Amino acid sequence: MFYQTIDILGTVAFALSGVLVAMEKRLDMFGVLIIAFVTAIGGGTLRDLLIGNTPVVWMRDLTYVSTIFITVVFGILFVKQLKYLRKSLFLFDTIGIGLYTMVGIEKGLQAELSPIMCIALGTITASFGGVIRDILCNEIPVIFRKEIYATACILGGASYFLFTQFPIQESYAYVLAITIVIVLRLLAVKFDIRLPSIYRKKLD
Amino acid sequence: MFYQTIDILGTVAFALSGVLVAMEKRLDMFGVLIIAFVTAIGGGTLRDLLIGNTPVVWMRDLTYVSTIFITVVFGILFVKQLKYLRKSLFLFDTIGIGLYTMVGIEKGLQAELSPIMCIALGTITASFGGVIRDILCNEIPVIFRKEIYATACILGGASYFLFTQFPIQESYAYVLAITIVIVLRLLAVKFDIRLPSIYRKKLD
Amino acid sequence: MFYQTIDILGTVAFALSGVLVAMEKRLDMFGVLIIAFVTAIGGGTLRDLLIGNTPVVWMRDLTYVSTIFITVVFGILFVKQLKYLRKSLFLFDTIGIGLYTMVGIEKGLQAELSPIMCIALGTITASFGGVIRDILCNEIPVIFRKEIYATACILGGASYFLFTQFPIQESYAYVLAITIVIVLRLLAVKFDIRLPSIYRKKLD
Repeated sequence: MFYQTIDILGTVAFALSGVLVAMEKRLDMFGVLIIAFVTAIGGGTLRDLLIGNTPVVWMRDLTYVSTIFITVVFGILFVKQLKYLRKSLFLFDTIGIGLYTMVGIEKGLQAELSPIMCIALGTITASFGGVIRDILCNEIPVIFRKEIYATACILGGASYFLFTQFPIQESYAYVLAITIVIVLRLLAVKFDIRLPSIYRKKLD
Repeated sequence: MFYQTIDILGTVAFALSGVLVAMEKRLDMFGVLIIAFVTAIGGGTLRDLLIGNTPVVWMRDLTYVSTIFITVVFGILFVKQLKYLRKSLFLFDTIGIGLYTMVGIEKGLQAELSPIMCIALGTITASFGGVIRDILCNEIPVIFRKEIYATACILGGASYFLFTQFPIQESYAYVLAITIVIVLRLLAVKFDIRLPSIYRKKLD
Repeated sequence: MFYQTIDILGTVAFALSGVLVAMEKRLDMFGVLIIAFVTAIGGGTLRDLLIGNTPVVWMRDLTYVSTIFITVVFGILFVKQLKYLRKSLFLFDTIGIGLYTMVGIEKGLQAELSPIMCIALGTITASFGGVIRDILCNEIPVIFRKEIYATACILGGASYFLFTQFPIQESYAYVLAITIVIVLRLLAVKFDIRLPSIYRKKLD
C-alpha cells in the first residue's frame, strides 16, 4: 500500500517533468503525452528489455498508463498552477528516483545478476526515462551535464549491498538505501554540488 | 496476397520517406540506406522488442530487407522523379499506417494484452519508424509537433475494439478500422487539422 | 586467449573514443562514463536485444564493465597524453570493428539466421555503439555522413560467407574476414575514400 502510493507519486512526478519539458519545446498534445509517457516509463522499459523481462511491465499493468494519462490531462489544464507545485514536484521526483532505484535492484536480484549489475539496473530504472525524454526533445541529456542524479542512485544502490552484509533485516537495508538516494539528491541540489566537467579542446 | 501487396507498398512508402529525409541531411549512401531501413522497420522492431517477440520480424523474413534495399536503389537513381510521385507516396504511406496499426493490434492480441495496450502497439508499429528516423537525423520527431498521424492510429485502433462488440465478422471490423485510420489522416491533411500545441514559457 | 586480448583492446578503444567525444561536449564525469560505456557496448546490446539474447552479454560478464571503467579513469587522468596515442587508438578501434563484426556474425549463425541477417548483426555490433554515442551527444551519427566504417563491416562479413563456400577451414575464413574489414578501413582512411553523399534540395 505504502509502496504503491510512492510508486504512483513517482510516476506522477516523472510524467509532469515530461509535460513541462515538452511544453517548452512547443510540442502538440500527442507529443506532450508521449514525452510524459517515456519520461515515466522509459527507464523501467530499458531495464526490462536488457534483462529480457517482456512484455515490459507497463504493458501488463494498466496502472501506469492510466496514471500518466490522468497526470497529463491535469498538467495541461493546470499548467499555470504547476509552478507553485515546483517544490512538491521536486520532492516527488526525488522520492521517485529513490524508489525506482530499489525496484531496479530487486529486478536484477530476481534475474540473479551480480550486485554491480543490479546497481546499474537500479540507476537505469531511475534515470533513463529522463535521458530518453531529452533525446526525443533534441537535447543532450541533462543528467550527463549538470545534475547529481545518477550518482545518488549509484551510491544509494551500493549502500544497499553494504547494509545487507550486516545482520539487519532486509527491509531496513531497503528503506535505508532509498533514504540515502533521496538525501544525497536533496543535499546536492541544496548546496549546488555538481560533478566536475572535464572539458577538453578538440585534439588535432 | 492483397494483404502482402499492401504491406510491401507500405514498406516502400516508409523507406522512400526515409530516403527523402536522409538526402536533405546530406548523408552518404550508407546513411541513406540505414535511415530508409529504420523508417520502414523501426516501429515493428520496437513493438517486437516490447512484447519479447524475438528475433524481431525483419530478421526472420528477407522480404522486408530486400524490398527496402531495392527501394533505396531506385530512390537514389530516380531522385528527381520522386517529387512527381509525391501524391502516390503520401497515399501509400497513409495506407501503410492503416495496415501497420492493425498488424500491431493483432500482435498485441496474440500476446494477450489488454485493448489499450493493443492500440498502443498498433500506434507504435505505425509511427515509431518515423520517430527513430527523425532522432537519427537530429530533429524533434515531426509527429510530436505538427501532424495528425498517431492520433489517426489511436482512433482507428479504438474503433476496431468498438466494432468487435457488435455482431459483425472480425474481418469487417479489421477492414473498417484500417479505413478509419486512412480517412482520418486524409481529412486531417486535406483540411490542415492539427493538434493544438501547448506552448508555455519557461517557469521560474 | 588471443581472442580475448583483442576483444579487450577493442573495448578499450571504443570506450576511449567515447571519452574523447564526451569531453568535447563538456559533459560531467558521469556523462563521460556513460558515453564511454554505450560506445563500447551499445552495438552488442542492440544485437542481443534484436535476437532476444537476454540478459544482454555485458550484464552476465563483468569483464566489459570493469574494462570500460578502468579505461575511463585512465582516459580522464591522462587526457593530455591521449593525443599522442591517436594512431594506436585508431588501430585498436579498427581491429575492434573487425573482431566485433565476426562476433555479431557468429551470434547470428547461432540464432540460425540467414547470411544477410548475420552480416547485418555483425555490422550492428561493430558500428551502432558509435551511433548511440553520437545520438546521446546530439549529433547526426558520423558513420552516416563521412566514414567508410559500416561498409567495411558489410564487405568483410560478406567475404566470410564467400570463403566458407570454398574447402578451407572455418577458422581461416574467420581470420580472413576480420583482416578484410581491417584492411578496407585502413585503406579508406589512408586514401580518404568516402561514400558519395546524395544531396538534394528540399522538394516542393
